[in-house]
Amino acid sequence: MTMSIREKVHAMKLLSPTMAATDSATKNAALLAIADALAASREEIFAANAADMAAASESGISEAVQKRLKFDEGKLSACTEGLKQLAELPDPVGRITLQREMDRDLVLTRITVPIGVIGVIFEARPDALVQISGLCIKSGNCAILKGGRESQQTCGVLFAIIRKAAADAGLPADALLQVSTHDEIDELLKLDEDVDLIIPRGSNAFVRHIMDNTRIPVMGHAEGICHIYVDASADQEMAIPVILDAKTQYPAACNAVETVLVSRAIAGDFLPKLATALSEAHVTVRGDEEVAGIIDVAGDLLSPEDYHTEYGDLTLAVRLVDDVTQAVGHINAYGSRHTDAILAEDPAAVKTFFALVDSAGVYHNCSTRFADGFRYGFGAEVGISTGKLHARGPVGLEGLTTYRYRIEGAGQCVREYAEGTRSFHFKDL
Amino acid sequence: MTMSIREKVHAMKLLSPTMAATDSATKNAALLAIADALAASREEIFAANAADMAAASESGISEAVQKRLKFDEGKLSACTEGLKQLAELPDPVGRITLQREMDRDLVLTRITVPIGVIGVIFEARPDALVQISGLCIKSGNCAILKGGRESQQTCGVLFAIIRKAAADAGLPADALLQVSTHDEIDELLKLDEDVDLIIPRGSNAFVRHIMDNTRIPVMGHAEGICHIYVDASADQEMAIPVILDAKTQYPAACNAVETVLVSRAIAGDFLPKLATALSEAHVTVRGDEEVAGIIDVAGDLLSPEDYHTEYGDLTLAVRLVDDVTQAVGHINAYGSRHTDAILAEDPAAVKTFFALVDSAGVYHNCSTRFADGFRYGFGAEVGISTGKLHARGPVGLEGLTTYRYRIEGAGQCVREYAEGTRSFHFKDL
Repeated sequence: MTMSIREKVHAMKLLSPTMAATDSATKNAALLAIADALAASREEIFAANAADMAAASESGISEAVQKRLKFDEGKLSACTEGLKQLAELPDPVGRITLQREMDRDLVLTRITVPIGVIGVIFEARPDALVQISGLCIKSGNCAILKGGRESQQTCGVLFAIIRKAAADAGLPADALLQVSTHDEIDELLKLDEDVDLIIPRGSNAFVRHIMDNTRIPVMGHAEGICHIYVDASADQEMAIPVILDAKTQYPAACNAVETVLVSRAIAGDFLPKLATALSEAHVTVRGDEEVAGIIDVAGDLLSPEDYHTEYGDLTLAVRLVDDVTQAVGHINAYGSRHTDAILAEDPAAVKTFFALVDSAGVYHNCSTRFADGFRYGFGAEVGISTGKLHARGPVGLEGLTTYRYRIEGAGQCVREYAEGTRSFHFKDL
Repeated sequence: MTMSIREKVHAMKLLSPTMAATDSATKNAALLAIADALAASREEIFAANAADMAAASESGISEAVQKRLKFDEGKLSACTEGLKQLAELPDPVGRITLQREMDRDLVLTRITVPIGVIGVIFEARPDALVQISGLCIKSGNCAILKGGRESQQTCGVLFAIIRKAAADAGLPADALLQVSTHDEIDELLKLDEDVDLIIPRGSNAFVRHIMDNTRIPVMGHAEGICHIYVDASADQEMAIPVILDAKTQYPAACNAVETVLVSRAIAGDFLPKLATALSEAHVTVRGDEEVAGIIDVAGDLLSPEDYHTEYGDLTLAVRLVDDVTQAVGHINAYGSRHTDAILAEDPAAVKTFFALVDSAGVYHNCSTRFADGFRYGFGAEVGISTGKLHARGPVGLEGLTTYRYRIEGAGQCVREYAEGTRSFHFKDL
């Protein structure tokens, strides 16, 4: 008898405390076993990927997606290397974050625990399946995984290898579940009693669609509208390569810059130099009338509503502002609270920017492209969150945990404390 | 010209970074100024409360609600005392929770920041308005407050006093906003672009209604189905007063016990003693056929679906289980992940219970009624969360903050790290 998704996920929910209680040694052994099993099954994986690639090429899927879909020796060794690194990281579960004696023989302890059951819906890259499975295992979570349709064969083989190696290493076999059809996703989104968190990775429209169609909490980001503000005090020699990096190093990334704000005091001098550098890097510059009065801009002149645009390609909006306060005002009004940078040598301007920009990442004198779990030293990331609750910015192992309060007592009742015959003496241990 | 709620809340959103950047001294001065202003305005407050009480009595509102509505000398001094205590607590904002050198002259810092704009919708108690305003001010959040209709006069006066005293002490005047009509609440729930969090306090049906009608994250709890498991190894002399406390000390509270699970090994001996004690405390015992074979039970025999019931009064369900594993299974299947306790002397049983019960609070040998921000030593609480993300259990100042990542660099670009000509050397500072 085949179980429905609803039944499988409910069984997973009941299993999740057992997965959560799995000790570090077993989880780490599973990660290493998965790395070995993947390496040993390279031919099978590459054959499945060749089938996906052939189908993709036949159906005319874009070069960019085909590149993400490809799973070769390089991607495989990055995956196995990543799993081994994950095994070496400290266990994020079981950390005591508060311990307090409330009264004699009455001790409160706050301890980190896994979130429980996490659904991850991700894009074409099959390596994401390996990375996300690894993060969920290390953090003691049960995971429901759904890869892109284009990567179906590759993900099918990868998942089977991961699941078997994990179970053989002693993890609960049903702690990982793969779903593959759109109907199953629709069903999954209804299971708010059993699924604790959904992490969608993909286009803005896709993430927004998920958020609008479930009562399950969603961690992700719908938009990445990042800014760089060039203050009057900026080191202009430094500013140009940083802006180029933030725009061109990977323009489709959510942490690429979309709008550069430039202090009016330096615009006449700085904008022509910036325009030359951008032009050499094939970046199209857009701007309003004021910017067009100084440098050439492409297309229609920009109006304020246009500053909400995430270009995601080699297009950059430029706007002039009086000072850091106006720059902050622009960023908080038009940004997506992802990552924003100030280029400045004046400490007062930096201080204002750090205090008032309401984003997950606020940088001084470097590229917005640093917003990434690997670059933050988290070992890996499950995604980047622009929500303000639970986890912000790149989300690694810590973002996949929550906590629980324990009290160990000796028969204490509340009545005596409520009536005042006993009182708490709070002493942090 | 009057602004609409939408316009006011949008203005508050743009103001929220300024509120967030307010220094500790100003926030603490505001809390003390509010305490003084409330004490100085006692006559005005009591007059407004008398009007609310008269209207409540006229419209036949229940005694219980009238008791919550009453704002007298005792409540006033508890409020002012609470504000003074809050002023003495450490500032939850600006704490550095991670600091890491990524590379030379490239430093990552994670720092706590306020959530931003919080909407709190609370029940009849006017003292909740004071407590919540205080928590939001101390944590640097802007707050939109909506009290119960019954407490309209009292809340109106309290809010005016709080707002004026806070503004006079140097807080942004529009960091606090009061809304009063149902239409305004409906409008508020639509403002997911500008409101970061909604905290509803009230009946389960009310909280569920809020959750179902907004895309804004909601922190709260829809149900409080708490359990006590009496293990075969329990100290039975200790067990009876703890169960009585958990059921009778405040039966309407969400942390009161609803179901007691008893080990079959001791049921024949323990249940009659428990039944006698419960009967003396006017508690109605319900149970299934097995329990009814040992002690008298009231009403229809219970079937499994009935264990989802939150009685909220002097009614208690009793069920027998084989051991701690079965007790954990029952709790994870029928509980609401609020607070559950084990009474046991066997350390192995306690260990299993602590490892596997998936609730915000898991206790050993004490009453479930300890689940409370004051009793945890948080100074105050804005509510109790049964969600697993962001904050669990009693939510105090820490639960009203999130964090932000800062990077301070010297012109670094990602390209060199991506191309491998430079590499990170992660060193925690």
